[in-house]
Amino acid sequence: MGDQIGQAVDGKLVYIPFAEFEKVRKAPWSREQRVAVFADMCRLNALYMIARAGSGHIGSSFSSMEIFSWMMLEELELGTIPTEGNDLFFSSKGHDAPGYYAVLMGMGRLEFDLVHKLRKIDGLPGHPDVHTPNIITNTGSLGMGISKAKGMIHANRLAERDARVVVLTGDGELQEGQFWESLVSATNHKLHELIVVIDHNKLQSDTFVKNVSDLGDLDAKLAAFGWRVERCDGNDVAVLAQTLADMKDDPYPKVIIADTVKGKGVSFMEHTSLDSDVDMYRFHSGAPDANSYQKAVGEITDRISAAIADLGGDDIAYDFIVREPAPALPETAQKLIPAYTEALLQQAGKHPNLVALDADLILDTGLIPFRETFPERFIECGIAEQDMVSMAGGLALGGALPIAHSFSCFLTSRPNEQIYNNATEKTKVIYVGSLAGVVPGGPGHSHQAVRDIASLSGIPDMVMVEPCCAAEVAPLLDWCVNEAKGSSYIRLTSIPCDIPFALPEDYEAVQGQGTVLVDGDTVAIVTHGPILTGNAVRAAEQLTEAGISTKVINMPWLNTVDGSWLAQALAGCTALLTLDNHYMDGGLSDAVGRALECDPVVGLKVSRLGVSDVPPSGTNSEVLDAVGLSVEHIAARATALAEVR
Amino acid sequence: MGDQIGQAVDGKLVYIPFAEFEKVRKAPWSREQRVAVFADMCRLNALYMIARAGSGHIGSSFSSMEIFSWMMLEELELGTIPTEGNDLFFSSKGHDAPGYYAVLMGMGRLEFDLVHKLRKIDGLPGHPDVHTPNIITNTGSLGMGISKAKGMIHANRLAERDARVVVLTGDGELQEGQFWESLVSATNHKLHELIVVIDHNKLQSDTFVKNVSDLGDLDAKLAAFGWRVERCDGNDVAVLAQTLADMKDDPYPKVIIADTVKGKGVSFMEHTSLDSDVDMYRFHSGAPDANSYQKAVGEITDRISAAIADLGGDDIAYDFIVREPAPALPETAQKLIPAYTEALLQQAGKHPNLVALDADLILDTGLIPFRETFPERFIECGIAEQDMVSMAGGLALGGALPIAHSFSCFLTSRPNEQIYNNATEKTKVIYVGSLAGVVPGGPGHSHQAVRDIASLSGIPDMVMVEPCCAAEVAPLLDWCVNEAKGSSYIRLTSIPCDIPFALPEDYEAVQGQGTVLVDGDTVAIVTHGPILTGNAVRAAEQLTEAGISTKVINMPWLNTVDGSWLAQALAGCTALLTLDNHYMDGGLSDAVGRALECDPVVGLKVSRLGVSDVPPSGTNSEVLDAVGLSVEHIAARATALAEVR
Repeated sequence: MGDQIGQAVDGKLVYIPFAEFEKVRKAPWSREQRVAVFADMCRLNALYMIARAGSGHIGSSFSSMEIFSWMMLEELELGTIPTEGNDLFFSSKGHDAPGYYAVLMGMGRLEFDLVHKLRKIDGLPGHPDVHTPNIITNTGSLGMGISKAKGMIHANRLAERDARVVVLTGDGELQEGQFWESLVSATNHKLHELIVVIDHNKLQSDTFVKNVSDLGDLDAKLAAFGWRVERCDGNDVAVLAQTLADMKDDPYPKVIIADTVKGKGVSFMEHTSLDSDVDMYRFHSGAPDANSYQKAVGEITDRISAAIADLGGDDIAYDFIVREPAPALPETAQKLIPAYTEALLQQAGKHPNLVALDADLILDTGLIPFRETFPERFIECGIAEQDMVSMAGGLALGGALPIAHSFSCFLTSRPNEQIYNNATEKTKVIYVGSLAGVVPGGPGHSHQAVRDIASLSGIPDMVMVEPCCAAEVAPLLDWCVNEAKGSSYIRLTSIPCDIPFALPEDYEAVQGQGTVLVDGDTVAIVTHGPILTGNAVRAAEQLTEAGISTKVINMPWLNTVDGSWLAQALAGCTALLTLDNHYMDGGLSDAVGRALECDPVVGLKVSRLGVSDVPPSGTNSEVLDAVGLSVEHIAARATALAEVR
Repeated sequence: MGDQIGQAVDGKLVYIPFAEFEKVRKAPWSREQRVAVFADMCRLNALYMIARAGSGHIGSSFSSMEIFSWMMLEELELGTIPTEGNDLFFSSKGHDAPGYYAVLMGMGRLEFDLVHKLRKIDGLPGHPDVHTPNIITNTGSLGMGISKAKGMIHANRLAERDARVVVLTGDGELQEGQFWESLVSATNHKLHELIVVIDHNKLQSDTFVKNVSDLGDLDAKLAAFGWRVERCDGNDVAVLAQTLADMKDDPYPKVIIADTVKGKGVSFMEHTSLDSDVDMYRFHSGAPDANSYQKAVGEITDRISAAIADLGGDDIAYDFIVREPAPALPETAQKLIPAYTEALLQQAGKHPNLVALDADLILDTGLIPFRETFPERFIECGIAEQDMVSMAGGLALGGALPIAHSFSCFLTSRPNEQIYNNATEKTKVIYVGSLAGVVPGGPGHSHQAVRDIASLSGIPDMVMVEPCCAAEVAPLLDWCVNEAKGSSYIRLTSIPCDIPFALPEDYEAVQGQGTVLVDGDTVAIVTHGPILTGNAVRAAEQLTEAGISTKVINMPWLNTVDGSWLAQALAGCTALLTLDNHYMDGGLSDAVGRALECDPVVGLKVSRLGVSDVPPSGTNSEVLDAVGLSVEHIAARATALAEVR
């Protein structure tokens, strides 16, 4: 009947309800048989969750599904929090969260209704967070897992609790230095409680690990660090179970290199269906299109049906819901990343010493055309931000103009000391962070870059800029390349934005000076980036209608505000509202405060809106509303400010 | 005559003048013989520089002296800047700078008079900086060297320059994850130009590497990463030369594990004179006492004389200067680190879940008594700050109260993302950074923590505090342990301070509220920490004498200032001067600005003094003067503020 399910999902999404998982968990089969069927059922639900959310990581959820299922159902005596003294299990890579959630729900360890709420604000975050039951640590930032597990084991030993701690890692993740840093003391302290399983699915974000930054002889490396190393087929439950049993009494920390297939369980998603030199794997992140979804469902349900029939069980009863269309953006929505790509190509054409460095996000950072056009000037660094940034420093010393790319959340904090070290050399390095700000809200706080400006503060000559629309990208990059005395940081929103304003025809990037997009004379709103500038302009329309004359100023200079220009622009206004797509400490509002300290505007009431606590995961509008940066919040605060006398 | 020199230095310091180095470099001996004598001569001058400066790293300068000397004199075709196309050489560990400087001066590549100016403001910085001739990259922050070298090689290849790049690393340095992170792409890109020499002197900052965080089978580890590995006696010039020759044409990146002796060349400084379980090696950093100096000079000069006599040369002519007494601090000088040690022991006595983590700075962070008293609650993490901080996160999840220690410069930036990740879990971790602020000025900018507050900004619930005197340490630690809702950062000045004020008898730590130390009603100075609060009080005395009534407020709450308390404390003053022992962006001044935004003081003129550019290396008073934070600077700015109408 599987294939029929596949046919049936035209326009619908399908999932397996909880009762069916209970049946399978109690079926009179061997442990390995039960887990294999259970894992495949979880695949369908993970796929459902991702399709419904419109985003999520299929490939890695699928490759690790047998590992999750065996560990959770059979291998471990599981605890829900680290202080209970039971075994502990978590994923260090974290983007396999949909798969993990599916397993937890199938076991009844997580409220089943959450299957409908991946990446929704009252649901399940895009990456694991301890506020979800049974999630014991926050991941999504790579390479921290073994260190955290070691801390849990030390806490267990101190409290005289004896329990295993199992960490699932990715293989791309092994490019992070912290992974290797964390191996050493585990050996020295003989942390036999620690088991690391590497989901060695051979692919990282963009493509094959070996094409990004080849790991070499992984077995030899790990063994050289003094760990007990085993290797097995990580998608074969029986083999995995035997491997774990074999190493159980070993007195050293243990690592299993689990050879898995990325996208396991759907023929055209499996990495083994690709040529080994393929540029891009399509199912790392993002939802499948309708056709792929339908075909994938057909394959998975076929296999489940066949397995259960073989075992003499009753076929699964599926539930269906109508697939809701993704919220449409207007055709005029602007995309800053393609604008950056184009601007970068232009600068690279003019500057033969311009080199682009990437940390395994070539698609997201818009670098594919650069690599095609200037392959000799493109350096793929892998998931190794510290190495990338110090390499950029060396390139700059060697006369190149390096531009280092990653997501803002990683680029500004993982290599924080390396960026400062480069700056002390007074060379010129450009850092370009995408995925900046509180939205997209889906991935959760590990990916929401809302402290990037703060964490790069206090670096001499470092100028931080953020374009508010596609048209502002090229002039700001041009300034960074051709005008800046030292290094700079370009902060880019990654999601398409509906922009309700336009820069003036004669726009020029002048350091410290912004653009008055809406004129008014009571409340002034100073902000940055397309999301908040757009919301400010929308709020200003409402305010003006309500009789509150509102000025909106976009300030692309995040840490070098020209106080005398701003004081002049604010002249006559009685109130200033600054907006941070960032924590309120350390962002643009602080820079505005510094600028006005030197050039005070007499009698100006000042207030700010921005992020004040760890932002939630959710849809973009849910998250903007939750952190108090929606149009309504802005209008309300501006109204309150206008009313203060 | 060597021993006679040793006798002669009673009360004096001795060095070898440049002409003697020229003679040896031109002597009719074999290359290896010349270099061996040259290296020993450099030992004497490095010792002179450190003794004269009153600080510096003897052990590592001595262990690497033959490596530096052979590389610079014989092996490489040296360039002075990376864009010349010549061979490049630098030390990644950087604290061997006195040795490196001695070699450069002995070769005539650095003005010889600088031999008298180690750690002076117009002289040679404590760690290498590119503004010194022949220094090609800034180091002192560990683990970045190979990454930087790879960047230089990529720049060379792009510009079609063919040159070797040699990086000297420490062995403790190998505990940093970036070292392992940086190995991978060197193999993948077949960077045959790259030669890494590990100065494997077996000791790191505090004691034996194997006791801190054992490296295990280093040869196997490096070979597993795909590098060509050789091992040799790094203090034997001939063996080193042969090893380099053997691997010259290898098409892969190369690493030499150079077995060396820490403190090589002075019997009682050589690590081989210690028991292998000794707790502390005494000659990692700091100047030798007069007796040790005299004995060391005797040994070195004896050996030089004997070697030259053997070779048939003329003995060396030495130069002497009178040893200046170290500037004395009054007996009443306060030390915050011992105060912290005592406070920590008290808290640990009350809280059986309190765990202290250290990153190879157990002496500097004051943790030795803690380790002795609570050995089961002390975790030595090695030079692995990312691992330490994520371990602290795991400990907190497991119910412990972890306190992570390092120098502020490293603790707040190397594991920046890890600290944020911990904070998103809403656990409680206390971070204690010592060596905070712009002084001591000797070590240079890699160690001057003047952006720590900024780089930890925008972390929810993270409260940052800094005691202004020994008496304020315990109440602030008590607050962090017993009152704080979330995590905290304690910022500690490490140098002894002459404190011209006292806290009130009834002092209590109340979040957001400071202490009025000097009352006045025209200019208010708000500041933090013992150095600047001391200078502010001294400036206030001058100002009051000059008729400018000055108030001084110490504000130990670096990022949570209570605006209404402050506004009240400032009432009546016409001007506010804030002082940052930190860059002016992102420090206390910004926090004061945020607080007063909500609670404005009408008509208050505001100004700030703080660090605005990369601070120089120099004596403490030189550096405070250079960055504009001396008593005179403070008094002058306050005077100017008082005069504005």
